[in-house]
Amino acid sequence: MSGWVAIAGLGPGREDLVTPEVSAMLAEATDVIGYIPYVKRVAPRDGLTLHPSDNRVEIDRATHALRLAAEGRRVAVVSGGDPGVFAMASAVFEALEAKPEFAGSDIRVLPGITAMLAAAARAGAPLGHDFCAINLSDNLKPWAVIERRLRLAAQADFAMAFYNPRSRSRPHQFGDALAILREECAPERLVTFARAISRPDEALKTVTLAEATAEMADMQTVVLVGNSETRMVGRYVYTPRSAS
Amino acid sequence: MSGWVAIAGLGPGREDLVTPEVSAMLAEATDVIGYIPYVKRVAPRDGLTLHPSDNRVEIDRATHALRLAAEGRRVAVVSGGDPGVFAMASAVFEALEAKPEFAGSDIRVLPGITAMLAAAARAGAPLGHDFCAINLSDNLKPWAVIERRLRLAAQADFAMAFYNPRSRSRPHQFGDALAILREECAPERLVTFARAISRPDEALKTVTLAEATAEMADMQTVVLVGNSETRMVGRYVYTPRSAS
Repeated sequence: MSGWVAIAGLGPGREDLVTPEVSAMLAEATDVIGYIPYVKRVAPRDGLTLHPSDNRVEIDRATHALRLAAEGRRVAVVSGGDPGVFAMASAVFEALEAKPEFAGSDIRVLPGITAMLAAAARAGAPLGHDFCAINLSDNLKPWAVIERRLRLAAQADFAMAFYNPRSRSRPHQFGDALAILREECAPERLVTFARAISRPDEALKTVTLAEATAEMADMQTVVLVGNSETRMVGRYVYTPRSAS
Repeated sequence: MSGWVAIAGLGPGREDLVTPEVSAMLAEATDVIGYIPYVKRVAPRDGLTLHPSDNRVEIDRATHALRLAAEGRRVAVVSGGDPGVFAMASAVFEALEAKPEFAGSDIRVLPGITAMLAAAARAGAPLGHDFCAINLSDNLKPWAVIERRLRLAAQADFAMAFYNPRSRSRPHQFGDALAILREECAPERLVTFARAISRPDEALKTVTLAEATAEMADMQTVVLVGNSETRMVGRYVYTPRSAS
């Protein structure tokens, strides 16, 4: 019996946004590893061991998955959204690089609906032209890198999606990001706050950059910033396919 | 009976990457509108009218969908991947803006697995840090805009995904894009060519920027360019979560 690790994305929250590929893999798994709220989304059953763990222990969790697979277990490492977007996939490959004894591991990554695409769909089509995704957490990178990237992204006229805009331990970033955007973009620029999309407490709000405040985002929010041509039609926010 | 338009993403190709949300919507639809190869992916059944159309008629197609919905039909507008990423969602909102008579339309956007996320999953985790998505087609924007955006994206050290790198009518772009990247990035930068991911003719190849040639991409290819820290571990390409 040969073990494997499948790093899977559970999508933004609602069950009908989990791909059949992921559901089929979960039905074969013997172990599920992940951050507590994502492991909670997997239905318990006989023969399936759930290993919920706290935030910020990604490398321990990844190493645990590799070790269980080496013992012949079939291990699902679950993330919300897509596992390759600010989630567990990179952590597993970092662990693999650090532990050459797991070099022969059978590892697959199963994509999912990432938060920015679920949020964009709910709003209309704000990412309908070239765009970028930036993690505002300065947990793993200096704030100066984020600041420079934000400025260049605005100058490139990308639409933008911000992940992890605010948390208790990092309350300042999103306010600082807004200040940088105000230097680079017109006050009419549209900013959409998409909170807990597809979950019972979903909330969606679009304002101008002039009206946006740091308090409009929390750690459940993805923030979408339009490009210079993004506009409203009725209740929908959209970015035209063309640029001049 | 009130009609609606659901703009849906069918994912990269394989059936088990279509979300249950999209499958349930298709079971309710009376009409399916889209580019020929995407409409072909929807199983015919009694009561469902398929309206395949050629490429480059996005606005006609969108207006057709709004008109059918106004007549009480339940219309699925289908794209490959995610409808909000270089696909039909923006076209529908452009049509809505141009035709005020459809202002009351019931329009939903249903997200899907976009090509870059399917490609990244197959390769490992090349988009595991901040990244951008750029459509290299100069169909709807001047090449100078693309060139400037590419240069700023490289300076921001984004990982990058290129959609529509090459086509018969636009054979030059991707070669020009590679030339710009060679000015901005080291020759060791990793470039992944992901063709027809999840389909029977899938192909995946990772080379350095020095080795990359324009002929490695065609119109079925998404190109993923790593950031300055992207590397290989075994057969996997990944971008660490941290940046210095």
